[in-house]
Amino acid sequence: MSEQQMPSYPVDDTNRVKRRHQRAHYDHATVHAVLDSATLCHVSYVIDGQPYCTPTLFWREGTTLYWHGSSASRMLRSLSEGQPTCLTVTHLDGLVLARSAFHHSADYRSVMAFGHARLIEDPAEKERALVMMVDRLFPGRTASLRPTTEQELKATSVVTMEIEKASAKIRAAGIIDDEEDYALPIYAERIPVHTLIGAPEPDGRLVAGVTRPATLSGFSAGRRLDEALTEAYAASYPAGS
Amino acid sequence: MSEQQMPSYPVDDTNRVKRRHQRAHYDHATVHAVLDSATLCHVSYVIDGQPYCTPTLFWREGTTLYWHGSSASRMLRSLSEGQPTCLTVTHLDGLVLARSAFHHSADYRSVMAFGHARLIEDPAEKERALVMMVDRLFPGRTASLRPTTEQELKATSVVTMEIEKASAKIRAAGIIDDEEDYALPIYAERIPVHTLIGAPEPDGRLVAGVTRPATLSGFSAGRRLDEALTEAYAASYPAGS
Repeated sequence: MSEQQMPSYPVDDTNRVKRRHQRAHYDHATVHAVLDSATLCHVSYVIDGQPYCTPTLFWREGTTLYWHGSSASRMLRSLSEGQPTCLTVTHLDGLVLARSAFHHSADYRSVMAFGHARLIEDPAEKERALVMMVDRLFPGRTASLRPTTEQELKATSVVTMEIEKASAKIRAAGIIDDEEDYALPIYAERIPVHTLIGAPEPDGRLVAGVTRPATLSGFSAGRRLDEALTEAYAASYPAGS
Repeated sequence: MSEQQMPSYPVDDTNRVKRRHQRAHYDHATVHAVLDSATLCHVSYVIDGQPYCTPTLFWREGTTLYWHGSSASRMLRSLSEGQPTCLTVTHLDGLVLARSAFHHSADYRSVMAFGHARLIEDPAEKERALVMMVDRLFPGRTASLRPTTEQELKATSVVTMEIEKASAKIRAAGIIDDEEDYALPIYAERIPVHTLIGAPEPDGRLVAGVTRPATLSGFSAGRRLDEALTEAYAASYPAGS
């Protein structure tokens, strides 16, 4: 399929990438790949004209995003009123040292997703979302846990947002200097940046005989977090949603 | 010094941490340590009631933040009008798998900084900022580069914001289960997450004899990016600003 034929998010003035538009992508596959390889996002919302930018854990289901918070939080009180929202995910992949200050840059993958967020109030919808909040990261884990209590359900809120518009912006170019600058005796390099999983730390108070379940094997020391998350996502949503 | 005696950002309803307030810090030292160990931030601003959350490179000087963009970008056109802004930095340090879904969590360090952003228009102020944009990461590097042209100066914009209010929120607790849940035969662990520097990739077109300057030695393969950035910051701002 050409890029024109792929399912894509609509483009208008809100999400059209104006700067460096050659780095822009609007197709579902590219946007979703950036989202599903992350667990941390930043959510922007407005209260009384003041913008807030809040980091939180999130996940995707089809063209719907979910994120988590406490019922007491400022963000969720605001969002339950259905405000316009922007959820952004960024992976930093490298620092680029060129031969001029102007061409210093970074390699990165980011997505900005726009929509109207709403608090999930239906108990069944909320319970299902709370399962996926854990299982999206660690497939099947919820079934092995101490069940959630009524009080815990009340103390947790889940927000959902249909993605109305989205754009991905990706730079994976390394060093791009002006042609005449390559002749200069100036050092230039790309410094790769990787977010990696460290050696898992089993809790010190595990009951004797309790061992690490095979379902966690994807989270192994030295592995890239974005790869482990992408794999976990595919296991949790095998239909490829 | 007790926390009360340290220089701190003022606290009001905008920046007071309402959820998990025991994780909150407002003192300059804690807020600045989170900021100076990062190069990527997310900036929130509002255009026509629509919030945007944009990733960009930033740095701190005293209680002032600076970030970068093109004069053509949507964000900068908006900010030059002096809108309220929130700049957020988050380091993800670990995923926490507890014995209940409710206590699943993440270890992290984040800062939300609030103020009113303004575009730097004074040519001398802008030129100095563009030097520090590079030198904050790579101390002294600008002096070794091909000088910036007038056209490049025009094509680059720098935004600055005095931090009027800020809060840091830090979780470094690992697994915290309900006391009675420790007796359950459920596996629990902390998965550490580290953002690391990979093996630097010298440009393939370096002039013969050009070698890596010693000033870049802090950016070495396998090192934590936050540590390298903190060290570079201290070298660029030795007065401890």
